[in-house]
Amino acid sequence: MQAPATDTPAPVQADAVVIGAGPAGLFQVFQLGLQGLRARVFDALPFAGGQCAELYGDKPIYDIPAIGACTGHELVQRLCAQITPFAPAWHLGQRVDRVQPLAQGGFLVATAQGTQVHARCVFIASGVGAFEPRALKLPGLEAFAGTQLQHRLDPDANLAGQRVVIHGGGESAVQQAVDCATAPVALRAARITLQHRRDIFDAPPALLDQLQALRAAGHIEVAIGVASAIVQEPGRLTALEIINPEGQPRQLPLDRLIVRLGLVPRLGPIADWGLPLERKQLLVDPATMATSVPGIYAVGDAITYPGKRKLIVSGFHEATLAAFGAAEWLAGYKLPLEYTTSSERLQGFLGVR
Amino acid sequence: MQAPATDTPAPVQADAVVIGAGPAGLFQVFQLGLQGLRARVFDALPFAGGQCAELYGDKPIYDIPAIGACTGHELVQRLCAQITPFAPAWHLGQRVDRVQPLAQGGFLVATAQGTQVHARCVFIASGVGAFEPRALKLPGLEAFAGTQLQHRLDPDANLAGQRVVIHGGGESAVQQAVDCATAPVALRAARITLQHRRDIFDAPPALLDQLQALRAAGHIEVAIGVASAIVQEPGRLTALEIINPEGQPRQLPLDRLIVRLGLVPRLGPIADWGLPLERKQLLVDPATMATSVPGIYAVGDAITYPGKRKLIVSGFHEATLAAFGAAEWLAGYKLPLEYTTSSERLQGFLGVR
Ligand SMILES: Cc1cc2nc3c(=O)[nH]c(=O)nc-3n(C[C@H](O)[C@H](O)[C@H](O)COP(=O)(O)OP(=O)(O)OC[C@H]3O[C@@H](n4cnc5c(N)ncnc54)[C@H](O)[C@@H]3O)c2cc1C
Ligand SMILES: Cc1cc2nc3c(=O)[nH]c(=O)nc-3n(C[C@H](O)[C@H](O)[C@H](O)COP(=O)(O)OP(=O)(O)OC[C@H]3O[C@@H](n4cnc5c(N)ncnc54)[C@H](O)[C@@H]3O)c2cc1C
Repeated sequence: MQAPATDTPAPVQADAVVIGAGPAGLFQVFQLGLQGLRARVFDALPFAGGQCAELYGDKPIYDIPAIGACTGHELVQRLCAQITPFAPAWHLGQRVDRVQPLAQGGFLVATAQGTQVHARCVFIASGVGAFEPRALKLPGLEAFAGTQLQHRLDPDANLAGQRVVIHGGGESAVQQAVDCATAPVALRAARITLQHRRDIFDAPPALLDQLQALRAAGHIEVAIGVASAIVQEPGRLTALEIINPEGQPRQLPLDRLIVRLGLVPRLGPIADWGLPLERKQLLVDPATMATSVPGIYAVGDAITYPGKRKLIVSGFHEATLAAFGAAEWLAGYKLPLEYTTSSERLQGFLGVR
Repeated sequence: MQAPATDTPAPVQADAVVIGAGPAGLFQVFQLGLQGLRARVFDALPFAGGQCAELYGDKPIYDIPAIGACTGHELVQRLCAQITPFAPAWHLGQRVDRVQPLAQGGFLVATAQGTQVHARCVFIASGVGAFEPRALKLPGLEAFAGTQLQHRLDPDANLAGQRVVIHGGGESAVQQAVDCATAPVALRAARITLQHRRDIFDAPPALLDQLQALRAAGHIEVAIGVASAIVQEPGRLTALEIINPEGQPRQLPLDRLIVRLGLVPRLGPIADWGLPLERKQLLVDPATMATSVPGIYAVGDAITYPGKRKLIVSGFHEATLAAFGAAEWLAGYKLPLEYTTSSERLQGFLGVR
């Protein structure tokens, strides 16, 4: 799902920064809210939900407590609805690259996109890592990123008159080709080429049927071969060169290249923050989810401790303990347990009184 | 809510016994089911739900992950629905008094009501203890328990022609008096006396209004005074004696005495099983929820470990870890993590394939 609000200019101060808007990060926002702490949420993806949204949005999950079955998307919707009273600030499509303790206390959190926030505490809910589109590696191609080269297309992009090449053989590539070919006529590309190594696509049967029909009708051309090079004029990408199964080069002229090779999680930045890792998982104190740096907590698939299971129900509990851990650390004393069912204070935060 | 099925005669063998049908015990049944282990569930109360059902059935809970708000009863209904594929055997209205390791392995679990089960492993989800009605302590009264003396009345009990005395000053006593006075005429008692120490009742305003109206109409008599003794003939309770505010004794003739003093949780039996306790909580290994006795696990409000918070979300996670802990202990090796979303084996257990 799209996040409830779009990115906002970062103010200097925040109670808490949550890195990762997967199920653990979203419930972290909720539990922080119950502790009276407002969160800013970052995710490299342009939407909330982490693995649930990205990897299995339409598949049912059966082991969320007290929810018989819900799809990944439904779970994310429910979690986003639950945190609305706490109005987190969203920074989607932003990868956090730096978390740096400040001399005056707190942390500087900075993204690859240039956003900077000063936070009193930080919650790493980064799962298997920042999801990023897998790149097509061809010399010179990277220079066109964001102009003629794209990994995601705005659903109502105007492609009228353009020649579009879509590179990839999985569901997302096929879906992209079908979406382009079925866009409203006024916005539809002049030519749509789906380019893949071989003439076998890995997508659900219904989608493959749609592709077949659009190919037969001449709306999508399929070009088989290994992408080998780009062709360019100064400042302009003009074609993708492929080597076809017979070993012959062929040029696919284009105005836009959409690379759809799926996403890869990149642990990347987190490994560089100097926090102790065990087999790429952050080591935490299971009582509070504190990392070795006071004020930095971690929850969800990103962490390990004795008995850790990479399940959503675990992330929920970890987020709860982390919120208590941080709230007590900030307060400097132990906090009493209050129930949402009976505490007027919590109900005030929740806006239900 | 009433449990989905009534008590069944106990067979000799069971994979697992779950002691306590609160939220932790119910989700324990679910997680055991995912591990292929079938459970028998015991609760001293005649219904499932523990504190959620008994103490705040009609109040909303706001901090169950991905459920915006649900009442205690709704949560219990959802949890009971979720475990139906695993068809646990229910032993409600039964208090487990004994958990005894057997020479041949496994445990003998025995209730105050005489049920006996041999279980491979035991899960203590006993919360604050077994909920039991608070007793009215008068010499000789206990002998009439279950005949003329009752703590709960079947909603469609036939009281025609009877003189009923209800003892208590809280919501449950007032509700009981109102229920008796508004029962269908054919089943209604000949005389209904609500007996309490003073003429102040602790109940919601609407219920007090109802009481007032029924008193005014002569359907309920209120008798004020301290219960001091019972009056009996051989084998028959004939009256309750009270000392009124003026210090005079008075006899309330009766056929049935309904004592409604609320419930008290009794840690009782659990404290006697030789398991290490810390401030009345069972000490567990937080990685597996194992107690010091191999094969006995504990979850929910009954336990403690560093960082423990007495919240429902914690019980859910603990039940998950306990199920893995037990399944690995029974198997003798580490088990891989499988997802309900993608595992055909789990979906087979869940009956969704
Ligand atoms: C196919 C499949 C089926 C599953 N089925 C189940 C199931 O049935 N039940 C169950 O309990 N679990 C299931 N899981 C596991 C479950 O999805 C994970 O346990 C859960 O998503 C972990 O949540 P999380 O919030 O910790 O991390 P994630 O969901 O991985 O989210 C982490 C987020 O952090 C972002 N991020 C990481 N680093 C950065 C950074 N530096 N800057 C900005 N953003 C960053 C990522 O982009 C990502 O969106 C399944 C997983 C898969 C793959
Ligand atoms: C007023 C109130 C409001 C609350 N609000 C919230 C809230 O908003 N959010 C939240 O997360 N938590 C809340 N809680 C706490 C929550 O209810 C508990 O954490 C939860 O019920 C614990 O679940 P449990 O299954 O461990 O134990 P319990 O719910 O206590 O259930 C234990 C069950 O075990 C049975 N039992 C015990 N011993 C035996 C025996 N020997 N034989 C047979 N049966 C036995 C008992 O009869 C009982 O039914 C609230 C609690 C109260 C009192």
